[in-house]
Amino acid sequence: MKIDDTYAEAFPVFVSRVIVTAATRNWALKAATEATGFATSCIGCAAEAGIDIYLPPGETPDGRPGYSILICTQKKDKLKEQLIERIGECILTAPTTATFNGLTEAPEKLPVKLHFFGDGFEHQVKVGDRSCWAIPIMGGEFITEEEFGVVKGVGGGNIFIMGENQMAALTAAEVAAERIETISGAVLSFPGGIVSSGSKVGSRKYAKFMKASTNEAYCPSLRDKVPDSKVPPGIGAVYELIIDGVDVKAIETAMRGAIRAACTIPGVKMISAGNYGGKLGPYQFKLHSIL
Amino acid sequence: MKIDDTYAEAFPVFVSRVIVTAATRNWALKAATEATGFATSCIGCAAEAGIDIYLPPGETPDGRPGYSILICTQKKDKLKEQLIERIGECILTAPTTATFNGLTEAPEKLPVKLHFFGDGFEHQVKVGDRSCWAIPIMGGEFITEEEFGVVKGVGGGNIFIMGENQMAALTAAEVAAERIETISGAVLSFPGGIVSSGSKVGSRKYAKFMKASTNEAYCPSLRDKVPDSKVPPGIGAVYELIIDGVDVKAIETAMRGAIRAACTIPGVKMISAGNYGGKLGPYQFKLHSIL
Amino acid sequence: MKIDDTYAEAFPVFVSRVIVTAATRNWALKAATEATGFATSCIGCAAEAGIDIYLPPGETPDGRPGYSILICTQKKDKLKEQLIERIGECILTAPTTATFNGLTEAPEKLPVKLHFFGDGFEHQVKVGDRSCWAIPIMGGEFITEEEFGVVKGVGGGNIFIMGENQMAALTAAEVAAERIETISGAVLSFPGGIVSSGSKVGSRKYAKFMKASTNEAYCPSLRDKVPDSKVPPGIGAVYELIIDGVDVKAIETAMRGAIRAACTIPGVKMISAGNYGGKLGPYQFKLHSIL
Amino acid sequence: MKIDDTYAEAFPVFVSRVIVTAATRNWALKAATEATGFATSCIGCAAEAGIDIYLPPGETPDGRPGYSILICTQKKDKLKEQLIERIGECILTAPTTATFNGLTEAPEKLPVKLHFFGDGFEHQVKVGDRSCWAIPIMGGEFITEEEFGVVKGVGGGNIFIMGENQMAALTAAEVAAERIETISGAVLSFPGGIVSSGSKVGSRKYAKFMKASTNEAYCPSLRDKVPDSKVPPGIGAVYELIIDGVDVKAIETAMRGAIRAACTIPGVKMISAGNYGGKLGPYQFKLHSIL
Repeated sequence: MKIDDTYAEAFPVFVSRVIVTAATRNWALKAATEATGFATSCIGCAAEAGIDIYLPPGETPDGRPGYSILICTQKKDKLKEQLIERIGECILTAPTTATFNGLTEAPEKLPVKLHFFGDGFEHQVKVGDRSCWAIPIMGGEFITEEEFGVVKGVGGGNIFIMGENQMAALTAAEVAAERIETISGAVLSFPGGIVSSGSKVGSRKYAKFMKASTNEAYCPSLRDKVPDSKVPPGIGAVYELIIDGVDVKAIETAMRGAIRAACTIPGVKMISAGNYGGKLGPYQFKLHSIL
Repeated sequence: MKIDDTYAEAFPVFVSRVIVTAATRNWALKAATEATGFATSCIGCAAEAGIDIYLPPGETPDGRPGYSILICTQKKDKLKEQLIERIGECILTAPTTATFNGLTEAPEKLPVKLHFFGDGFEHQVKVGDRSCWAIPIMGGEFITEEEFGVVKGVGGGNIFIMGENQMAALTAAEVAAERIETISGAVLSFPGGIVSSGSKVGSRKYAKFMKASTNEAYCPSLRDKVPDSKVPPGIGAVYELIIDGVDVKAIETAMRGAIRAACTIPGVKMISAGNYGGKLGPYQFKLHSIL
Repeated sequence: MKIDDTYAEAFPVFVSRVIVTAATRNWALKAATEATGFATSCIGCAAEAGIDIYLPPGETPDGRPGYSILICTQKKDKLKEQLIERIGECILTAPTTATFNGLTEAPEKLPVKLHFFGDGFEHQVKVGDRSCWAIPIMGGEFITEEEFGVVKGVGGGNIFIMGENQMAALTAAEVAAERIETISGAVLSFPGGIVSSGSKVGSRKYAKFMKASTNEAYCPSLRDKVPDSKVPPGIGAVYELIIDGVDVKAIETAMRGAIRAACTIPGVKMISAGNYGGKLGPYQFKLHSIL
Repeated sequence: MKIDDTYAEAFPVFVSRVIVTAATRNWALKAATEATGFATSCIGCAAEAGIDIYLPPGETPDGRPGYSILICTQKKDKLKEQLIERIGECILTAPTTATFNGLTEAPEKLPVKLHFFGDGFEHQVKVGDRSCWAIPIMGGEFITEEEFGVVKGVGGGNIFIMGENQMAALTAAEVAAERIETISGAVLSFPGGIVSSGSKVGSRKYAKFMKASTNEAYCPSLRDKVPDSKVPPGIGAVYELIIDGVDVKAIETAMRGAIRAACTIPGVKMISAGNYGGKLGPYQFKLHSIL
């Protein structure tokens, strides 16, 4: 097992954290999943979003089971818009849910005026010491805060997992993603937390209309066909984890845990990371320093 | 148990059906879930989308486990755009996936040029008798067709489930949604398949800026506060299933199965449906005729 | 990919099929899982048992979602005892469940007198044309038939999946097991459907007290240490699927589907099967004939 | 919501705690589920067993994801036997698993000689500072400790959840069970953690052959038919949680968390507990003191 002597390059993002609760864990998960769907990469989606951690009954503002989710965008206005749309379309509509601000200590808050949906029938309530709105709906009442903290976080923390074949690399990526599932403040926005198709900026051949295209240097099937392949001999598949987080520490903790977990799987040969000479962003996470 | 003598009013939508396969059921599900996320209602989302049915290994074009999903929009151009974005961002990026046209008999097909991502390294392959592209990616190759059938389907088929309290109505909605999970050609786009917060068009109080607001006539907590409540006495909660499908028959089959399943749950008191005097659309599904 | 020119050797077992329904799919699954737990091999467990197929709402005697399960033993008396214990301890006790005979056409039926639990408060009811008992319990009433068909089925159908490393072989076994999940009449009794530790009868070294021990001929880590290893070069792991079924046809269908599914996974090198020169039993399933 | 002024009566049991790890969370869960199956009540099963808590990658002896499980019996010899059988039949046989002693500080340990399965091919290894055996198997090697701590714990901690109908009571029981899932040292041995059919010792009508029968005093459908019903008016269903734990504190923590979680569900009317005048055992958990 080799840990490549390189670093992950990352960039600043605006992040809000929403606590979604529901009558049962299952309903909280369904709402959190819908609200963080179609949100893999800011290149093609309106936001990057993922499920942060599970909060058992008793560890949420209303005592019910829940999940915290992170929603990340590159512009602050976009974040406000995405909070309204994703909470309004995907959580307010889901059975038995409530939403709370998951970054109570953030000095800046975004107003997210959901109570207008109540059409004047809504009323204010306290949940513990939180000021919330209760909006009458068909299923009962939807309880929500209307201000959500926003912080400048980190997007694009990453590791590459290289395995001798597809299933070794993929299972390692899976268990690495499982590690991050219990680390607060860090999320994986891609399906199951894993990126199968890393991209480079622009395109060699279709430059006129493609903003991004396959990163041929990391494609095992092209190892002997491209001059600058970064796929070592004996590697059959590469999977990437891309991590967004509330701060540098969350990314570091997630990367460390993910690498250690990935290394428990037989057939994993090398861990590396992606960087772009500073063009992507100011953050650098050196693999050798993190471990 | 009362079946209300009324009908569900529905409207035409453009529908494509995408078959998503992967190495295992779990990975196919994760990709299908991400690709159909943030897609509850065309009011606030770019599309309505949901998982159609599970296809076991051996029942897909490449013999691997998969799911069919439906993506629905009100305009055809928007459907093409959503196919590109949702497949490109959420399925191409997911581990071990492939995508195939799930409406092979539709006379009209939308071109979805995913192979450009391959930046010239892609090549054509046959999967059975289907012409596909193989795009080199980090995890191996992404195999996909590039034309997806489109049909004029039906959006907004619906039933209302009224229960003596929240958990009776919700569990009935859950089992009704489970029934539809195995009916080919019909999907539920809301979280877990269930709508908790039905809306009316516009707003009484915030008309200047709200396109939709809570449907107070169906809110149990407002039963004694609004003049025209449609919530019968003794009803504690109302949940709605909204069904999109490839044709009228799929909607009918889904509504019939859903109503029968809902009626197995103790505490369910009435099944009804939503209609809007023909303003919403031309389709009418009479509950008493369907059963 | 090589399909070994060999056969799986299997033996007769007594089989009953129980349909477990519940209010929701989740509760049916939990009951079915508990009832088929601790039932991997007749060598160390009182029965071999597994979940057969999912039955959606509308496809069961009471219209609710359910699962059929198979319970298999080598003696008929033991089967009756196991039916009483597993239904009584694991399904009767589970929320909202009911149980029905899943082999209605079997000429022979085992009496399973569960109604005595009702202590005289029980009463007879009809579910469709089935004669059942309704037993008052804390959660409501437990509905059950009291006669369960028994047939002479087949135990020990099997395939060996050999992969270049652990994750390739395991993922292939997983997807093969997923194939069998939708084949009616065949079950996998081991955890997740997969056997990691195949055994031989008796023991070389600890013969005095061990009835079975590791099958060193199939252990990749012993390939160079035992004279008669059956592990080909380049194989890093071997997983076995052991299939019990209601008849020869169910075993054949399951083996065929499983082999085809396993072969879709990159890194799988060979499919073989286990046989013991006729000492284990009279059934032979030739791999080359089955496919 | 009423908390009944009563207590849960519980009894001593012998308890071992086994840590089951695997390559992924899913495989650890499958093995843990099989190993704790058919183990609801010592009345009809050889042990009471359940899943304790999830241990993410990095929080287990070998760094892989895992679950701790508790196995409980009334006699110590039976516990040793059950450890051998349940680990040997359900975990050793499961893909990629390992097992470790989860009660390292218990002064007494039970010898569980699993290495004989290796038939002389096994060898000793260290996992951190734990002395383990590595047993060659088809899937690779099975790693296990051979001594498991045993403590005198508590069996039969319980609460009754009474709801205005079945789904309210059941959902409350579900969320209470979810609370206990994250409390270390306490398990629920029944399916999904919930008991639907509480029993009394012996039988009125079938006393000759029934050791236990339905507890008619808690059956809502018999409320007007038995003289001593303990079901208050307006209660449609009663579900029980039965908790086994490593010590008194684990039971108390679990009961407290479960009651609070249950009370978040609309339609729950009363929490009570079961006791038998000291005939069952020496432990008493007063609901009013615990909260």
